[in-house]
Amino acid sequence: MNKGQLLYEGKAKRLYQTEQDDILFVEYKNSATAFNGEKKAEIDGKGVLNNQITTLIFEKLKTNGIDSHFVERISEHEQLVRKVDIIPIEVVVRNIAAGSLAKRLGVEEGTPLKRTIVEFYYKDDSLGDPFINNDHIDILGIATKEEVEALYKLGLKVNTVLQPIFEEVGVTLVDFKLEFGRDKDGNVLLADEISPDTCRLWDAETKQKLDKDVFRRDLGSLIDVYKIILARLGGK
Amino acid sequence: MNKGQLLYEGKAKRLYQTEQDDILFVEYKNSATAFNGEKKAEIDGKGVLNNQITTLIFEKLKTNGIDSHFVERISEHEQLVRKVDIIPIEVVVRNIAAGSLAKRLGVEEGTPLKRTIVEFYYKDDSLGDPFINNDHIDILGIATKEEVEALYKLGLKVNTVLQPIFEEVGVTLVDFKLEFGRDKDGNVLLADEISPDTCRLWDAETKQKLDKDVFRRDLGSLIDVYKIILARLGGK
Repeated sequence: MNKGQLLYEGKAKRLYQTEQDDILFVEYKNSATAFNGEKKAEIDGKGVLNNQITTLIFEKLKTNGIDSHFVERISEHEQLVRKVDIIPIEVVVRNIAAGSLAKRLGVEEGTPLKRTIVEFYYKDDSLGDPFINNDHIDILGIATKEEVEALYKLGLKVNTVLQPIFEEVGVTLVDFKLEFGRDKDGNVLLADEISPDTCRLWDAETKQKLDKDVFRRDLGSLIDVYKIILARLGGK
Repeated sequence: MNKGQLLYEGKAKRLYQTEQDDILFVEYKNSATAFNGEKKAEIDGKGVLNNQITTLIFEKLKTNGIDSHFVERISEHEQLVRKVDIIPIEVVVRNIAAGSLAKRLGVEEGTPLKRTIVEFYYKDDSLGDPFINNDHIDILGIATKEEVEALYKLGLKVNTVLQPIFEEVGVTLVDFKLEFGRDKDGNVLLADEISPDTCRLWDAETKQKLDKDVFRRDLGSLIDVYKIILARLGGK
């Protein structure tokens, strides 16, 4: 499969056409960004780590009955995925209060939530990815009622699979962000990536942050903690 | 009915006990506040106008089958209401993009929405009344699922009644905020006030703002425009 025309360049990845119409080429970049792109850095090795970690997680999800756009990892920083139309909704799933939720509800970071919750954000950089509700989604016309229900349920289902996988290796899955797309038949399919860029992952004992908060909050080496996550998930 | 102990002082009203356990005395203040209390003023005559306007609106709602805590207006700036436990959720109903919605979704103020939408905000001054979703309400434990459904439906129902009432007198009901409480039997009851403090009201022809945005955005005399609303609703 060869890299064709560049279709899209995001903050962390580039997407290219391939000779097969329904397959895309994904290149993981070394860029780290936070606060809607206000904080930026190039971090050698980040792309390779996220490509490996995302691959491991998508494979584990598939084994557990959750399909995604992931096809295969084809090089250190590249993978093939099924082509989908991304639904511009970021689905955030939370088990423990952190980040914007802790601020919004005035809850101390680290407080376990009574139950896992789901939030939707409108994926629009120019608006700063605002938090939205189901009525906003309806008037924006970005997803049907049935799709919104599917996003909510799939968010919880991914959590049900990932939480014990991380727990087994001493990592607490605090929260994470998912993106979904529609395949050519209109089916909702998990897409984008699942990595320490998109999850909050804490060491279960020490509470050490093993995710992009290390970069957001200047807490040390991003590569060091991403390597811990990769190793705990059985990668190398 | 006599004014007893002061139970609560809000930004725009004072609530007092009466000799009857389930009836409260409400005193409308002349305070105008905006931006979570950051902008403040005392405006002579505001309390009297809001007391009159709220009375007219609650009476019109009652005629149309929507009960509220309102009992009767007993003086220029005072009314009696049924005692309820306020549910700390502000129910915002929107017909036209304005204010925070226009910003959130990047829609020009004045754009009619595809349909009327409802938003929930957590009534907590220290947090700045944050926008929340149903999952937040659940983990905060501030309303049951059934109550949330009732708030949503009552929001739309109030809109269905008020929109034509305002339209008939040349006023566009852009959006409004409602509060609800639980009576002693646990029934959800419309409470607080409905006035130009809590609604966006535009002249249907000139688009002149006839509500608290006049104060928020320094557009002229609040009293002058509140008087227009009172007169259009048939008050004097």
